[in-house]
Amino acid sequence: MKISQKIEQAAKEDRVWWSFEYFPPRTAQGLQNLLDRIERMRALGPEFVDITWNAGGRTSELTSELVKTCQKLIGIETCMHLTCTGMPKEKVDIALREAKQHGCRNVLALRGDPPVGKEWEAVEGGFHYGIDLVRYIRKQYDDYFDIAVAGYPQTHLLPPEEAALEMQYLKDKVDAGANFIFTQMFYDIDMFVDWVRAVRAAGITIPIVPGIMPIQTWNGFQKATSLAKITVPQAFLDELEPHKNNDEKVRELGTKLVANMCRQVLAADLGIKGLHFYTMNLEKGCRMLLEELNLVPRVEVVKPLPWRQSLTPNRRAETIRPIFWANRTRSYLSRTENWDEYPNGRFGDSRSPAYGELDGYGIWLKQSKDDALKLWNTPTTVDEITALFAKFCLGQLQALPWSDSAPSSETTVIAQQLAKLNSLGFLTINSQPAVDGARSDDRIHGWGPANGYVYQKAYLEFFVSPELLDMLIPHIERDINITYYVINNRGDLRTNTHSDGPNAVTWGVFPGKEIVQPTIVEAISFMAWKDEAYELGRQWAKLYDPDSPTRKLIDGIMDSYYLVNVVHNDFKKPEAIFEPFFKAGAEYAAKHDAPKTNGHAH
Amino acid sequence: MKISQKIEQAAKEDRVWWSFEYFPPRTAQGLQNLLDRIERMRALGPEFVDITWNAGGRTSELTSELVKTCQKLIGIETCMHLTCTGMPKEKVDIALREAKQHGCRNVLALRGDPPVGKEWEAVEGGFHYGIDLVRYIRKQYDDYFDIAVAGYPQTHLLPPEEAALEMQYLKDKVDAGANFIFTQMFYDIDMFVDWVRAVRAAGITIPIVPGIMPIQTWNGFQKATSLAKITVPQAFLDELEPHKNNDEKVRELGTKLVANMCRQVLAADLGIKGLHFYTMNLEKGCRMLLEELNLVPRVEVVKPLPWRQSLTPNRRAETIRPIFWANRTRSYLSRTENWDEYPNGRFGDSRSPAYGELDGYGIWLKQSKDDALKLWNTPTTVDEITALFAKFCLGQLQALPWSDSAPSSETTVIAQQLAKLNSLGFLTINSQPAVDGARSDDRIHGWGPANGYVYQKAYLEFFVSPELLDMLIPHIERDINITYYVINNRGDLRTNTHSDGPNAVTWGVFPGKEIVQPTIVEAISFMAWKDEAYELGRQWAKLYDPDSPTRKLIDGIMDSYYLVNVVHNDFKKPEAIFEPFFKAGAEYAAKHDAPKTNGHAH
Repeated sequence: MKISQKIEQAAKEDRVWWSFEYFPPRTAQGLQNLLDRIERMRALGPEFVDITWNAGGRTSELTSELVKTCQKLIGIETCMHLTCTGMPKEKVDIALREAKQHGCRNVLALRGDPPVGKEWEAVEGGFHYGIDLVRYIRKQYDDYFDIAVAGYPQTHLLPPEEAALEMQYLKDKVDAGANFIFTQMFYDIDMFVDWVRAVRAAGITIPIVPGIMPIQTWNGFQKATSLAKITVPQAFLDELEPHKNNDEKVRELGTKLVANMCRQVLAADLGIKGLHFYTMNLEKGCRMLLEELNLVPRVEVVKPLPWRQSLTPNRRAETIRPIFWANRTRSYLSRTENWDEYPNGRFGDSRSPAYGELDGYGIWLKQSKDDALKLWNTPTTVDEITALFAKFCLGQLQALPWSDSAPSSETTVIAQQLAKLNSLGFLTINSQPAVDGARSDDRIHGWGPANGYVYQKAYLEFFVSPELLDMLIPHIERDINITYYVINNRGDLRTNTHSDGPNAVTWGVFPGKEIVQPTIVEAISFMAWKDEAYELGRQWAKLYDPDSPTRKLIDGIMDSYYLVNVVHNDFKKPEAIFEPFFKAGAEYAAKHDAPKTNGHAH
Repeated sequence: MKISQKIEQAAKEDRVWWSFEYFPPRTAQGLQNLLDRIERMRALGPEFVDITWNAGGRTSELTSELVKTCQKLIGIETCMHLTCTGMPKEKVDIALREAKQHGCRNVLALRGDPPVGKEWEAVEGGFHYGIDLVRYIRKQYDDYFDIAVAGYPQTHLLPPEEAALEMQYLKDKVDAGANFIFTQMFYDIDMFVDWVRAVRAAGITIPIVPGIMPIQTWNGFQKATSLAKITVPQAFLDELEPHKNNDEKVRELGTKLVANMCRQVLAADLGIKGLHFYTMNLEKGCRMLLEELNLVPRVEVVKPLPWRQSLTPNRRAETIRPIFWANRTRSYLSRTENWDEYPNGRFGDSRSPAYGELDGYGIWLKQSKDDALKLWNTPTTVDEITALFAKFCLGQLQALPWSDSAPSSETTVIAQQLAKLNSLGFLTINSQPAVDGARSDDRIHGWGPANGYVYQKAYLEFFVSPELLDMLIPHIERDINITYYVINNRGDLRTNTHSDGPNAVTWGVFPGKEIVQPTIVEAISFMAWKDEAYELGRQWAKLYDPDSPTRKLIDGIMDSYYLVNVVHNDFKKPEAIFEPFFKAGAEYAAKHDAPKTNGHAH
């Protein structure tokens, strides 16, 4: 979606909005951290995010990659910077083409800074000024992109004729097709207000979005303002300098100062309702500033589906996914990246049910070896493993190799049952409770438009030993409402379903709409998923020395255990799915005649 | 579906089955009557129907048409006769091609009788014997068709060498690829049993289906048996002849005689579980015979959808239809005949939402003018009209121009409310009650596989005067759960829905399956339907003289009234849909300050 549309919408609703700018990090670990942060900061409610283009385009591929991830995985609208520095036309073409492929509709066209220590110089076959880029984008892509340009409020120290020239440049860029203006950072509210009035006086009517730099540390503040020659009001210095060795205090006071400035911007009758935060890839400063300003994220008016949709063009219409990757969205997106079309309405609509191979993407644990050992220790018995799984279900363990984050709030309603299942030897890696027509605005289970009802069939997926499975199956088959798939690591599949078709396990009924069924269970997808499920166990084992008991234990489980998924099709009986498990577990315990806490391996 | 598969299935379930044979009638009225009869007799539970091919192929197009209607509209598996008589190869090709197009999988290949009063003679470029036809069909269509051939039990009077030759002919036809045998009619059980044993002794192992001719009148019985030189046991004659002037009595006694024979056939350890009834296009004889034999139709194990699916190949996968044609299936099938594909899973899947024009099919009332006058009299006030509609809702009137048959059993749960609505001036022509998760085997609302749940949103469709509509709309709009479409005969559409998409008003949730949503409400379909809805009113008006008050009254309604459909989207509140109507109706009555029974026009 174009930012100008968002600005217009917010104006119509008379609502203050904000956005976050990030820059591409230098390392792979930095990239992972940034993605986690963008994901977390999504909860702060930014209207969009903005990814800078590094001078000289050194990390330009990273910019493109970040834009893609934001659009596709994080599902947040993105603006991409594009500079003239070190960019021959071909590179600009690639950048724009990829942005469009990723569904990005917004580009900030800049001349860009010169490489450090050098004068600015156009590359051969490249562009000289921001306006060249604006014209080129407009020519090549018509009005597909919203084009933003930079505005520099810091002109009041310039000689009048130079300031007039700057204004003329801005006017020219707007006339060339720019849709809105991001301003450089500033701290002098009077200067900013004067500048905005001057811009308007010059006949420029497109929206102006003020760039706000939170004050995080004394040194950072000093460096940023001196580098960009930003006027800092004396009052700021008077307040902050006494605490220049106390970052905590600087941030606290700086937050109040900047918040005060923001309030003045919003109150100044300039028609400005948006604030663009230069996050410097940091979370705290932004968070404090938003809190100080009392800006809380809108309750998402519509969470259209129980899972977050991609914003890339080819996936925008996607409305169904298998449940198996519920905790591994990124992997699902990757393994289905080359599908011609994505399931919409019915899973059977997907014409290309071929999942990408595992090695095309690679499976790894997110945790470093150290983190993993801290989390999971060195279990040497099956009971120690089951204890880890049970703790995870109860929210006492942050992650498992199959889940990077704590169980979703909706599974907490069955946390006790899940913990019991695990302690009985069923190692659950995915689940959902039955829901029989919760309202679509239900705090825990709700999704979709207002005045609807949402439903779920109870679902369990777990690893289980052959012996325990043999005890479980007869109990499962006694309940005609249960359908199951059993598979081993070699891919031998067993099921009691009679049809190959998908089983809808989450669906919603809404006013004036067809039934929406965003989550399904299905054989082919399960077979593709099992490679990943077993591989995650293998990766876990590999954290330990080849001859260690833990390595052998986990490898042994991955060698011999079955992966099973079970759906209880009667969603009006939420507890019924657990009964066969409790019975089989009791039988198993009776047979082995030993309390489960003895730590014997089963 | 092939009949051999049905025979196999019934054998597996150790279940007696039966089928009905019909012949193409000579007149258009006869055709309509026959179709009505086949539809009615479907309720007697035939496994399939069988349509004869007239000698000389004179009515061959009618045979093809009948096969099509049975497959497509009546949704019953069909066997088509095909004869050599008067059929050049090209005609055979056309017949087979069309049979396949209509989804018919069964052909009875016969030489056929000679034209009356002539010797049998092959046409130029035609076939000589049934076996030629068997070979040709097998060659042209591989095993697409089940091929049946005729068997003649009436051979015990033939010289032994001739009987042996007949048996050899049969064996040759079987070797040429026949799948099963229909026998000629017979009444001599011993002869039949002997013949079956001889057939088996000759090494013929395919199923034998005995042809059973009910005895309906003495003359008919005499004519049929003498024409085909059928042996009639003396006991039959002894019983029947004394009553030969009393058809009633002949039928009664004949039924017992034939039923007794059927019991012997089924009990004779011949492996025969099926009875093929030569209905002679009559209902009573078959019905009495089945009753006498205590053969009741199976409760349909699976009624896959709330409406009856077509068996033609291109429509077999169709799973969604608009609710508007619920009482006019034939018209819907016709107006969508040229669609490239049919909605399956989602209505949006239909790529060709263009409805055929009305004149492509023609709209007429099924009732003759006399019937219509008897049914509907000559109303001269709006209140007399509303009274007709109210009576229809209460089951006290058999048909309305918009519905050929009484309201379905499921609407009887809202019959009182509907009658009240009509008496208030809302002329309902379609409706369904809300259903919140009835079991799929529910006697009234159930459909689909076992152990599922079915749902409906309450639906009303009606004609209404502009004044009453103006009173209704504010009440409707006060309930956020109601969506509506209003249209007039010029096609001006008003709605409070925000999306163009379809609204699923009937859906089901079943074990191991995606959600099934067989009925929807949608704008484009409604606009196509309204032409038909108004035209039916026009047709009604045309039954009366141009200057008659009734003609003017009905034409006036069709000129000025709106057609409205209303969905109450909260299916958990079954009564809520009626409230706005009762309120608006009360307002209207108060304003006009007159009891509705006064018969004033509104």
